[in-house]
Formats: sequence, C-alpha cells, structure tokens
Amino acid sequence: MAYSYQRLDKNDVAVLMIDHQAGLLSLVRDFGPDEFKNNVMALADIAEFFDLPTILTTSFEDGPNGPLVPELKAKFPGAAYIARPGQINAWDNEEFVQAVKDTGKKQLLIAGVVTDVCVAFPALAAREAGYEVFVVTDASGTFNTTVRDAAWSRMSQAGVQLMNWFSVAGELHRDWRNDIEGFGGILANHLPHYSNLIQSRDATLKN
Amino acid sequence: MAYSYQRLDKNDVAVLMIDHQAGLLSLVRDFGPDEFKNNVMALADIAEFFDLPTILTTSFEDGPNGPLVPELKAKFPGAAYIARPGQINAWDNEEFVQAVKDTGKKQLLIAGVVTDVCVAFPALAAREAGYEVFVVTDASGTFNTTVRDAAWSRMSQAGVQLMNWFSVAGELHRDWRNDIEGFGGILANHLPHYSNLIQSRDATLKN
Amino acid sequence: MAYSYQRLDKNDVAVLMIDHQAGLLSLVRDFGPDEFKNNVMALADIAEFFDLPTILTTSFEDGPNGPLVPELKAKFPGAAYIARPGQINAWDNEEFVQAVKDTGKKQLLIAGVVTDVCVAFPALAAREAGYEVFVVTDASGTFNTTVRDAAWSRMSQAGVQLMNWFSVAGELHRDWRNDIEGFGGILANHLPHYSNLIQSRDATLKN
Amino acid sequence: MAYSYQRLDKNDVAVLMIDHQAGLLSLVRDFGPDEFKNNVMALADIAEFFDLPTILTTSFEDGPNGPLVPELKAKFPGAAYIARPGQINAWDNEEFVQAVKDTGKKQLLIAGVVTDVCVAFPALAAREAGYEVFVVTDASGTFNTTVRDAAWSRMSQAGVQLMNWFSVAGELHRDWRNDIEGFGGILANHLPHYSNLIQSRDATLKN
Amino acid sequence: MAYSYQRLDKNDVAVLMIDHQAGLLSLVRDFGPDEFKNNVMALADIAEFFDLPTILTTSFEDGPNGPLVPELKAKFPGAAYIARPGQINAWDNEEFVQAVKDTGKKQLLIAGVVTDVCVAFPALAAREAGYEVFVVTDASGTFNTTVRDAAWSRMSQAGVQLMNWFSVAGELHRDWRNDIEGFGGILANHLPHYSNLIQSRDATLKN
Amino acid sequence: MAYSYQRLDKNDVAVLMIDHQAGLLSLVRDFGPDEFKNNVMALADIAEFFDLPTILTTSFEDGPNGPLVPELKAKFPGAAYIARPGQINAWDNEEFVQAVKDTGKKQLLIAGVVTDVCVAFPALAAREAGYEVFVVTDASGTFNTTVRDAAWSRMSQAGVQLMNWFSVAGELHRDWRNDIEGFGGILANHLPHYSNLIQSRDATLKN
Amino acid sequence: MAYSYQRLDKNDVAVLMIDHQAGLLSLVRDFGPDEFKNNVMALADIAEFFDLPTILTTSFEDGPNGPLVPELKAKFPGAAYIARPGQINAWDNEEFVQAVKDTGKKQLLIAGVVTDVCVAFPALAAREAGYEVFVVTDASGTFNTTVRDAAWSRMSQAGVQLMNWFSVAGELHRDWRNDIEGFGGILANHLPHYSNLIQSRDATLKN
Amino acid sequence: MAYSYQRLDKNDVAVLMIDHQAGLLSLVRDFGPDEFKNNVMALADIAEFFDLPTILTTSFEDGPNGPLVPELKAKFPGAAYIARPGQINAWDNEEFVQAVKDTGKKQLLIAGVVTDVCVAFPALAAREAGYEVFVVTDASGTFNTTVRDAAWSRMSQAGVQLMNWFSVAGELHRDWRNDIEGFGGILANHLPHYSNLIQSRDATLKN
Repeated sequence: MAYSYQRLDKNDVAVLMIDHQAGLLSLVRDFGPDEFKNNVMALADIAEFFDLPTILTTSFEDGPNGPLVPELKAKFPGAAYIARPGQINAWDNEEFVQAVKDTGKKQLLIAGVVTDVCVAFPALAAREAGYEVFVVTDASGTFNTTVRDAAWSRMSQAGVQLMNWFSVAGELHRDWRNDIEGFGGILANHLPHYSNLIQSRDATLKN
Repeated sequence: MAYSYQRLDKNDVAVLMIDHQAGLLSLVRDFGPDEFKNNVMALADIAEFFDLPTILTTSFEDGPNGPLVPELKAKFPGAAYIARPGQINAWDNEEFVQAVKDTGKKQLLIAGVVTDVCVAFPALAAREAGYEVFVVTDASGTFNTTVRDAAWSRMSQAGVQLMNWFSVAGELHRDWRNDIEGFGGILANHLPHYSNLIQSRDATLKN
Repeated sequence: MAYSYQRLDKNDVAVLMIDHQAGLLSLVRDFGPDEFKNNVMALADIAEFFDLPTILTTSFEDGPNGPLVPELKAKFPGAAYIARPGQINAWDNEEFVQAVKDTGKKQLLIAGVVTDVCVAFPALAAREAGYEVFVVTDASGTFNTTVRDAAWSRMSQAGVQLMNWFSVAGELHRDWRNDIEGFGGILANHLPHYSNLIQSRDATLKN
Repeated sequence: MAYSYQRLDKNDVAVLMIDHQAGLLSLVRDFGPDEFKNNVMALADIAEFFDLPTILTTSFEDGPNGPLVPELKAKFPGAAYIARPGQINAWDNEEFVQAVKDTGKKQLLIAGVVTDVCVAFPALAAREAGYEVFVVTDASGTFNTTVRDAAWSRMSQAGVQLMNWFSVAGELHRDWRNDIEGFGGILANHLPHYSNLIQSRDATLKN
Repeated sequence: MAYSYQRLDKNDVAVLMIDHQAGLLSLVRDFGPDEFKNNVMALADIAEFFDLPTILTTSFEDGPNGPLVPELKAKFPGAAYIARPGQINAWDNEEFVQAVKDTGKKQLLIAGVVTDVCVAFPALAAREAGYEVFVVTDASGTFNTTVRDAAWSRMSQAGVQLMNWFSVAGELHRDWRNDIEGFGGILANHLPHYSNLIQSRDATLKN
Repeated sequence: MAYSYQRLDKNDVAVLMIDHQAGLLSLVRDFGPDEFKNNVMALADIAEFFDLPTILTTSFEDGPNGPLVPELKAKFPGAAYIARPGQINAWDNEEFVQAVKDTGKKQLLIAGVVTDVCVAFPALAAREAGYEVFVVTDASGTFNTTVRDAAWSRMSQAGVQLMNWFSVAGELHRDWRNDIEGFGGILANHLPHYSNLIQSRDATLKN
Repeated sequence: MAYSYQRLDKNDVAVLMIDHQAGLLSLVRDFGPDEFKNNVMALADIAEFFDLPTILTTSFEDGPNGPLVPELKAKFPGAAYIARPGQINAWDNEEFVQAVKDTGKKQLLIAGVVTDVCVAFPALAAREAGYEVFVVTDASGTFNTTVRDAAWSRMSQAGVQLMNWFSVAGELHRDWRNDIEGFGGILANHLPHYSNLIQSRDATLKN
Repeated sequence: MAYSYQRLDKNDVAVLMIDHQAGLLSLVRDFGPDEFKNNVMALADIAEFFDLPTILTTSFEDGPNGPLVPELKAKFPGAAYIARPGQINAWDNEEFVQAVKDTGKKQLLIAGVVTDVCVAFPALAAREAGYEVFVVTDASGTFNTTVRDAAWSRMSQAGVQLMNWFSVAGELHRDWRNDIEGFGGILANHLPHYSNLIQSRDATLKN
C-alpha cells in the first residue's frame, strides 16, 4: 500500500513540553535519573536551536506534583506557559489548544511526564484533531518499562510516530552544512561519547 | 488516515475482573507479587471510586484454580458474580455476556489472570461483538514476559487498547477538580512515591 | 473498524512442527533449555490430545542440523513426515504443501526452530495462501531475543497471530467439562506450579 | 577453620531503623516502590511481633530529606527517636549510640535508606564497637544495584551478615509452635503468594 | 596461605533435601519453574546414582506449606523422612540431627526451599557442628535473586561451598570410566542440549 | 484481508550499507561489540555471496564520525561509494538515490549506524519511493535498546520489514542445494555454534 | 574476630584519577554514558570540595587512548599530572608513586578506566605498599559487568574497599553542619532527584 | 593485615586450556557465542604473544563432548596435549600434572569449559598444590550466570584470582614500550572498539 513519509519539517513543528515537574519527575523509573535529565535538556536545546515554537504546561504546580523544573523555565522565557488548573489531559485545556493552534504548525513534537497519561492523552487528542504527532520517547518517562510499553502500543496504534531526541535533531537538521558548529555542539553536550570522539580528533590534529 | 480517539468515559464503562483466583495468581510471574497485588487493588479502587459497574467471574473455584481473592469479593459485594462451570473464555458463558449487556455500557475495561487466556479470549470476543476494549495490562498477569508480549501483540492486532491502572484512572477522572481528595487518595494508596511527595509537602507546610 | 475473531477451532486446525532437530536446537538461546524442551513437548501433547493432524518436517537431517528429536518422532508415529532435501522454506516443498492441503484444515498452528527462518518463512507463505496462521511462540526458538523480536514483528505485520502453548490449549479446549482429567493432565505435566496446586489441594482433601 | 554460628536471638536483638524518610525514599531504585514499602513494613511488623527494642532515627527532617514515613512513627510510638541534627553516620550521634547501649542487646538488626551511607556507616561502626551486625538488605534501599553491590561487599568484608526480612523472621521465631497464628499472619500480610496458599487451603477445607 | 581442597567424596557424603513442598515451591522465583523442577530432580537422580544416604524433611505438611513433592517421595522410598512438627531450622530437630549423624558422613550436600531459611539455617548450624557443607544452589530456590544473593553471601562467609548439581555430579563421579552409561544418562536426562549432542552423534554414526 | 508475501529475491535486491564508520560505531550499545562486528560482516559476506549490488555511503568521514571501517571497503572494492558532503538522510543525496535506481532493483536491504537516523530515514524515504524495504536489524546499531525499539516501531508502521542477517541469508538462498558449501561456509564463519556442529560431525565421521 | 573500621578521613586522603581519557572512555559499557560522566564529575567535585590532594595520570595520550577529558584537566589545574610514557600499572611509574608519597596521606581513593586494569593494578600495588585503598566503583568503568564483577572480586580479596561517589562524599563530610550549602550543592548537581526534592520544597516554602 | 600482590609474571606463568571442545562449547550460555569465541582466541593470542608454555587437554573427544576446536589446535602445534581417557578433573590425570610441573612455573592461568567443573576442579587442586591460580573468567563458560556465580564464589573462597583476558594481557605486558605494535595488535584484533579508535586516529593523521 502507498506510504507517505511524514517527515519533521523545522518550519512546521511545534514542541509541547508537558508536566516536567519536580514531583512527577521523581516517579520516572524507566530511565536512569542522569540519562533522563540529559534527554529532556537535549530536546530543549533542539527546540531552542531550531527556534521552534514551544509550549510549556504544568498540572497542579502548587500540589505534590511540584514546580516545573527551573532549567526548562529558564530555557524558554518567552514560551507560552499554561499552568492547568486541573485538567489531566492538556488538550482539555482550551488555552493550551489555542496556544497550539496559534503556532500555525501541523506537526507536534510531544514529551512529558508521565508517558502513559501526560503524553499519551494529548497525543491521541492531537491525532484526532488532525495533527501529525511525534512523541519524543526518551524525553518522556513513566513508572516502569511495562507501563511504557503499553503506552507506546496505544499511541502507535493511533498513528503516533515514536522517535528519540537524536533522531528528532537529525530529521530537523537534514544537512550538517546548515550549521556544523551549532549542530555538533548539541551532540557534544548531550552525547558524552560523541564529545570523546571530537576530543580525540582534536588532540590528534594538534599533534 | 483519520483517527478517532476512543477515550474512556466514566459514564460508559464497565469493568470485568476475570479469574483473580488464589491458585491462578500463584502462576503469575511477569510482575513481582507485591507490585501485582497493588495493581489489582488499585484497579478495584478505581472501579469503586467511579462507581463503575463491575463484573466478577471465576473459573472452577472448587479446583486447583482456587477461590476469588477475598479482597475483591469484599470490595464489590453487590457486583454480578459469575462462577463459570467450565467455560475457559468468559465470553462463552451466556450469563456473563448478559451481565455485560445489562450494564448498557459500550466500553469494557478488562483485567485478569492469566493474560493470554482469561484476558485475551474475552477481549477478542468483545471486540468482535463491537465493544471498545481496554485491557489493564498491569492488573493482568501471566507466566512470563515472553507469553505476555505475544498476548499483547494478538490483542493489539485486534484493536484492543493496552493501558495501565494509572492511565485508566487519569482518563476517567479527566480533571482533578472533580474530586481532589478522592483521586489523590487513590494515588497515595497505590503509588508509594506519590505518597512520599504528599508527606514531604505536608511536612514543609507545617514548618 | 469491524473485527472478526479468528479463533482456534479444534476441528479446523493442523499442526506444523518444523525442524525441531538436535543440531538446530543447540542454537536456540531465547529460551532456557529446560523451558524450551517443556514447551515443545507441551505443544506435542496438545496436538495429540486434540487429535490434530500433525505434519513433521526436517531440513538436511544428515548434515549438522541433526536428526529430528526422538520424542517428537515417537509421539507422532503416523504423522506425515517430510524430510526436505534442501528447501529452507518448508512451503517451497511441494510434498509439504500437499500434506497441509490434505488435512483439509484452514487454520495452521506453526512451531519450529529457528523462529526467523523455519517458522517465519512458511508462516508468511501460508498467510499468502489464505490460511489463518497461529505461531506458537514459546515452542519456537532462535538465536536471541533481538532476532525473535524482529521475526515476531514481521509475522505480526503479515496478520500472523502470536500465541503460546497454554493459550493454544485453552482456545482449543474451550470448556473444562469436555475432559477435565485429560486437560488437567496436560497442565500438570507441563506447568510445575499447576501441579503443585493440585498436590496441595489433594493433600488438604485427604486430611 | 572453626566457625561459630552467630544466630539471631530474640532476647538479644535491637532494631535500628535509619532514615526511612519521605524524601530519601524517592531516591531508592534498587527495589520497586511497592516491593520496598512492603519490605520495610514487614520488618516493622517483625520488630513489633517479637517486641524487639527499636530505635528510629532521621537526618535533617526539616530539609529535602523529608519526614520519617508516618507508618513507622505510628508503629513504634514508644520507640527511642533520634532526629539527628547533622551527623550523617548515626553512630556519630552520642544519643543514638547511648540508645543502642541502653537496650543492652549485643545483636543489631539494621535497615535504612540509603544502604551505602545510612546503613553501611553505622553497621561498620557497630562492628568496630563489638556488636554482631545483621543488615536487612531488602528493607534497605539505594540508588541502583551497582551501588548496592559495592555496599554489600564492603559490609560483608567487615563481618556484617546480610539477611532479608523473611529470614530474620524465621531465625527469630525458630519454631512455628511458638505462635502459629501470629507468625502466619506476618507472612500472609507481606507475602501475597503465601496468603494465596492459605486461601486456597481454607477454601478446600470448607468444601 | 595454605589451602586444602575440600572435595566431595562419594563415600563421605550425605544429602539433605529440605522442604521441597508443593506450597513452598510456588514461592520460588529465582528460577523458572521448568528449570527448577529439572534441577531438583537432577540432584535426586545424582543421590540415587551414587547411592548416597539421603534425608528428607518437611515443615508443617498439613498447613499451607503443602506436601513433599511426590517425585521425591517416590525416588527415596527408604530414606529417613522427618516431618518436623514446628522447627524452622531443621537442625533444631533432634531427630533430623541424629539422622545426619547416623549416616556417619562428614560432608553434607544441602538443597531446599527457601534458600535463605530452610537451606541457610541448617547449613550454618552444620558448619558450626564441624561438617563440610556444600549447598546445591540451583536445587535451592527463594523469592528473588536479591534475597538469594544475600543468603549466598551469608553462607559463603561461613565457609559453605556453593555448587550446582552438575558440578556435584562431576566431583562425585571423578572419572567417566567408573560408569559411562549411567553418568551419561543423568546428563542426557537433565541437560537437553547434552542429549542433543548425543542424538546428533548417534545419527552420524548410523549414516 | 489478503496478504502478499514480499519475499527477498536475489535477482531483485540491492544492499545499502550506511555509515558504518569507526567513530559512529563507538556509539553503538544495543549490541555487544563482538556480536555487532560479526553481524555486519555476515551481512557483507551475504551480499558478496549472492553478488548483490551494494552501495556504501558515509557521512562526514573527515570529522569525528570517522572513516568507513576498512573491512567493508575491502570487501566491496567495486561498489558505488558515496561520501555524503552533509546530508544526514542518505536519500537526500541525489547521487545515492541515483545509485539505487541504477541497480534496477525494487527490494532494498538496509543496514547502518545509527538505526534511528542513518537507517530509519532512508528506509522511510525508500518506502515512500515505492521500494520494498527490509532492514537488517542486527547489522544496524544505536545508542540503546529503548532508542532501537522506537525506531523499529516507526519503521514497522511504515511497512518496513524487520529481518536479521540469518533470515536474510535463508530467504535469499531458498535451497541448500543451490550451493551447500558456500552457504554452509557463511554460517560456519558467523555462527560459532553452527561451526561447532560441523566440527563435531566431522570428527564423528572420521572415527 | 576484631574489626577495625577503616574510615575515610578528609585529612588523610589522596585522590588518584587514572586514565579518564577520551578514547578509553568509549570502551566503558558497564555504565550508561550520561551516568558515567556524571559519576566521574561528582567525584571530581568531591575532591575539589574537600580540597583533597589529587593526582591525574594518563597512559599514551598521543595514541588511540586519547587525551585526558578536558573537564578533569580544568577542574584540577594545579594537580600533579603524570603522563606515563608506557607503564600500564601507574604504580610502576616512579614519578606517580612519588607523587602519592608526597601527599603524605595513607588513604587512597582510586577511580579510573578501565576498572580491571588501570584501577585494579595500582589498587593492588597500593595495598601491598600498606595504603588503605578505596575504589570509587561508579567513577570507574570497563567493558561489561562480567569483567567488572571479576575485577571487584580480585580487589575485594586484597582488602580493597569498594565504595561509590555518594558514600565517599558522606563519609568524608561526616556532618551536614560542616557546610550545608556546599555539600547540598554537590548532591543537587549530581543527583537529579535530590535536586527535585529541593525544588519541590522551595516551591512549597514560597507558597 | 599485610597483603602481598600476586602479580602475573610472564616468566613464571603457564596457561592451561581445558576442554574447549566443540560439543561442550554448545552448552555455554553465560556469554554470547561471538563474544565467547573472541575471548577464547584473545587468550590464545596472548599465550602465543608472550610465548607462555601452554597445555591443552580434552575430555572424551570421541564422545558427544566433541573435538578440541581446531583454531586452538592450530595455534599451539607444539603444546603438550593431553586427551584424558576419563578423568573429569584434569588434575587427576598424572600426565597433565606432570606437564604442568615440567613448565617449571608457579603461576597458572586457567580457562575452560565448563567453568564450574573443568575450570573449578583443577583450579582448586592447583591451589592445594601450592600454585598461584588465575582463572580467565571470560574465556571460561558454563550453563548460565547463576552457575557461574556459584563457581566464582567457590574459587574465590579458595584464593583463586578472577581475571579477564584484557587484564591478563595488561598485567603480563606491564609496559607498552616492550612492544607497542604487537600488543596493540592483540587489542585491535579482539576489541572492535579499540580498533575503531585506531582507525579514526589514522584517518585523522592522514588528513
């Protein structure tokens, strides 16, 4: 059957960062803490690098879910920021949906905590609303890998595309020549072994 | 292709708890015993909290499969309770199917032991009968993860949606403001780390 | 979308045991050796119990692949037995396909070694030929779980249903009352913990 | 070489519960959250059942480490409770050491969070002070299994005996006849599958 | 430092099979059920093959622990059989200790369920009593690998030697020529892949 | 629904080896280094054995990605070799696409590093261009299994078939009799245990 | 037997950072890359915080082993830095041993890459030379966990104490009151979940 | 307590390669097949490189255990080769012990299949005979990791030092300058990622 490659286009993408809050993050156990923190910040750096419209949202910041992690707040000072008064599915919040619409984009990159709720629910709703939806799986976390597997299955069934931050970066950038330094910098900062390759090479060049 | 989000609606859901019997439970090895018990009781608390029509059924209670676990019996004193005389697939039992029909609901939340038989068979039959079927994967257990993976694949192929108890709770509740205390209580009772967050916050507030 | 439950029917099933040969078995590493032997013999007992037409086939018995394991040969003395002279895909062997046709069944239960070749190739060919195909995943083995996962994905994509021997037994039997002793015997022989349940119960009854 | 079995004696044991605080607990990732909570409470029930002198201690309750989990506080209302003002190793706190001495016991059962610090440090200090030290490994948690393995190695090197709550219970009780009901109750409450065995047996006895 | 190889001597070994009871077996989760059953029966076959004095003991057979598995009872019809009335540590039962003494052996091979209690306690007591103690680790099971690791550490600290059934067989047999057929038969029956090697070889020899 | 078996046909396949470069290879962690090297070279041997048109491509060889591994260069001296000046997706390079077209084949076997980018992007693009696409999963590597799982899901969703080098070999060869020696040689060189089977058999034949 | 607690004393410790070079780091696979980088830098921050004399050494920087990672060089600008001309065991380099002696400390904290060689060899040599040796296990990496386990066993046998960076920090600091801010800063920077606890608490305090 | 570093000395080491036979190798499942083959050949290359006296021995080559793998036979054409007529423990074979004595070395490097028998038995016997014994853990294989762990524990208890081939190479070589090319060649041939480092460096040097 015919297949059309829905490919990330940096001119047509908005990023939704959902509920990366200090309390909820402590529930994430399908990634190690260092790895997960790195993944989330890598996605944030990608959004910044490609100047993608980014929407931040939180659920019940005053309660045990805790505040949005300050690094994200600092990274996107001008981003739309919707502190939802109670809606679990961000897509049930009109302000949030309007902010998405206002970006004018048709591709949505979604990451959040926890994957099975805060990511899956708006991802499915956005699919129904006609968006192309890409979930950044390694910047989204949940209780354990069994829960994650079920959530991935449900989203995949709905036509959501599962990606990781590195492939998101590559699909958006398309060509190293668009900005070798900048793109390489993201890799070096978030892939310790890529940084090692660069250091080894530089050292050899110096000798 | 167009996608329609089949979303759990607390007014249109019935819960089927299938064969959570003392003997069969001892066969479950894709979850740790403490985790699995917690998951099953979390689902039961959800069914009670949202006042969802719930159907209990067992297979051969007099034999080695053993009795329904008493906590479930106690939790749903008025529930339809079908002790099947021999049918392996609960859907082959007319009384069971009638009980499902009598709920008047079109969405079915199914959990049971073992996943590949007691859950998968009625889930597939219910799909054929036109229901929207949601399997609560972490309140359903089986022999090992290899068996589980195959059963998930077969059910997913049939359009069954795979969820976990936490996402079921979230999709049913939709908005914290509907009942903060009640909903938070379920989380606190079944997510030890969410309970820790609450305790830390309360302690800070007191100081 | 409408879904039709393709359900194993003991009157419409043939069993294909493919390349369970001594040499090839030593390559299987996605199951422990004791577990895998038990799974294969459980499937064999099921085929015998339900009197399902069974076809045995091997590839290059004279070479390093080795002879069919003697337990299978002994279990099905009257079964069609096709020692393929060279075809890797059993479905490329006309005698084999004819033997399948001669059973007059439209549902095929397939197990074999290795999953990605000896099982997947005839499973896909049988799907193309219009059969309902059920692969018994835990009576089929291969080099490692990564290879298995890819083979499962390819077969699932083709509409093959992935099952395990226990769910095969349950779907075929349908009702314990059809033969409690016989069916319970298969479980007791191949599920040590089910046997334990029976022993505990019997001991309690005696006291 | 001659070996002397240092065996837990319920008349000569004190229990030290160290830093089971809400914040610190969220760092524990070498056990699942449900399993760990169950293990800690099982140890608490054992201490209560055998009426063992129990000492509770915490570190910086007012800070991010959070309050002692309320279940422990409630379980041991009369226990010595030392909220350490800053000492990381509880054994550096004179009040704590005095409380231990006051019990007059020479065997110490230690559990706490995190294993490599809050458990290991006082365990090594207590060994140096001449105590027989038993660490309850599954009621003690830390960041990951690699950290745990190193901590176990260090403690084992120092002559600390590594046990789990179930073996602690068994070694203290020695004979079921001392109190069948009470001891069985602890097992039933903290071993779901032991509870299943009891239920199956009771059901058979009733029939 | 000087080291003396404590080596199993078939003329100086007694075998202690402790609490392999139907109920307790359902608690074992550090081995798969098929694998564990095979391991226990392999050890039994070894004891029989070398005609080693074997002692069977159980704890509370009338209660949820359940009866001794019938295969062991059948295998050692003449063995000393001590149904302990309540002692958790078999070594606390005088009849059991006397039975051990009556064998006149100084090396003890111990296996049982669960490792951390039913095996570890008598192993430590036997060490104190001056025996050379060998625990058959893979014919002994418990709740999970974390519990097992702690129990192994405690026993190893006490000078217990950890072995597996295959190395026990080899160390007892010493030379294939003592009985090629008999020894090979044990391997073939309990190592499916060794059986495969034999079958492949036999098939080649026939051609 | 009707299913058509897209089966590898040695007369209609081209092989694309993408970015197996020394630097990128050091990032691969979803396979052990020995296993991965073996898998890549097995695929190379298959391409050579069946004389399949093979295209090599690299990305930024002068930078940290490093040079194409010399074994591949040596194996395919006459292959099209496209050192891409910057395009991340090889399919964005016209020379590469032209080289694919020039083969005149409609089936593409793709392997590369890393799976989620260098393999997935051209695989999806080739699907859109109407090719039958087969990804050799075990000759393609990436950062970890979580990333791999997401990439597999995305490709599978697009109709890509996931295979492993062994099944590729089998599906291409179809019949051992086409060349027993040659085909057996590939297996012996890349499956140590298959080599063992051959050696055991040869030794038996000699005796 | 009497036991003396060898306890880290910040006045008597030197830190040896051995061969954390860009090339060698790419060989480390017993830790994830993000986790390992974090662990190494946490140890570096500890050494700086407690102002511990620190010695850096490398092996063959000009060759494939690559340069010392720049973060370490930057962190310890005044540290002894021994670029070994060829000695594999740093302790075979006289300049290195002299630098250790010059610190005048009797406790050595060792971390490096790879654990089984660059860490184990000097650790054993330092033990022979009479030092108290503490290996920081999670700031030391190697090829896989099997290699690591053997290296840990060998070092533990030699009286080396295995620790992790967090327990090193705790044992050196001893009392939070010595510097709450500074010590908490290290935890917050290297334990994402500890940072989350702080953020949640701060947010609650503000409300 | 005083510790003396037993350090491999290339002038005082003999290598014992025990039962690396085609049939027995098929039983090894604690290492992947590619990895294990690489490890064994790496050790063989080390023995050759340092010109260490090497002794080959086999058990029952004519039976299912199969022939010594031909690569080892070819590598050591002049080595003592003892085909044991039946002794399971090679140390029970006088010819073997004499061959060891004839080397005049006091350090023994032992590797073999299976670890718990063919390696552990002669290792313990050699320890009793006063040798310094080093087991090359990753060139020794057995049924599974549980069996391996027990065997390692028993050997470690006896003072055997557990090493891996890479640390053996490093401890023997001591200084890169003794032969940079030769030593680097072993690493490049058996560590794919070390080879990658070399290739990347060479490529950079050329540019």
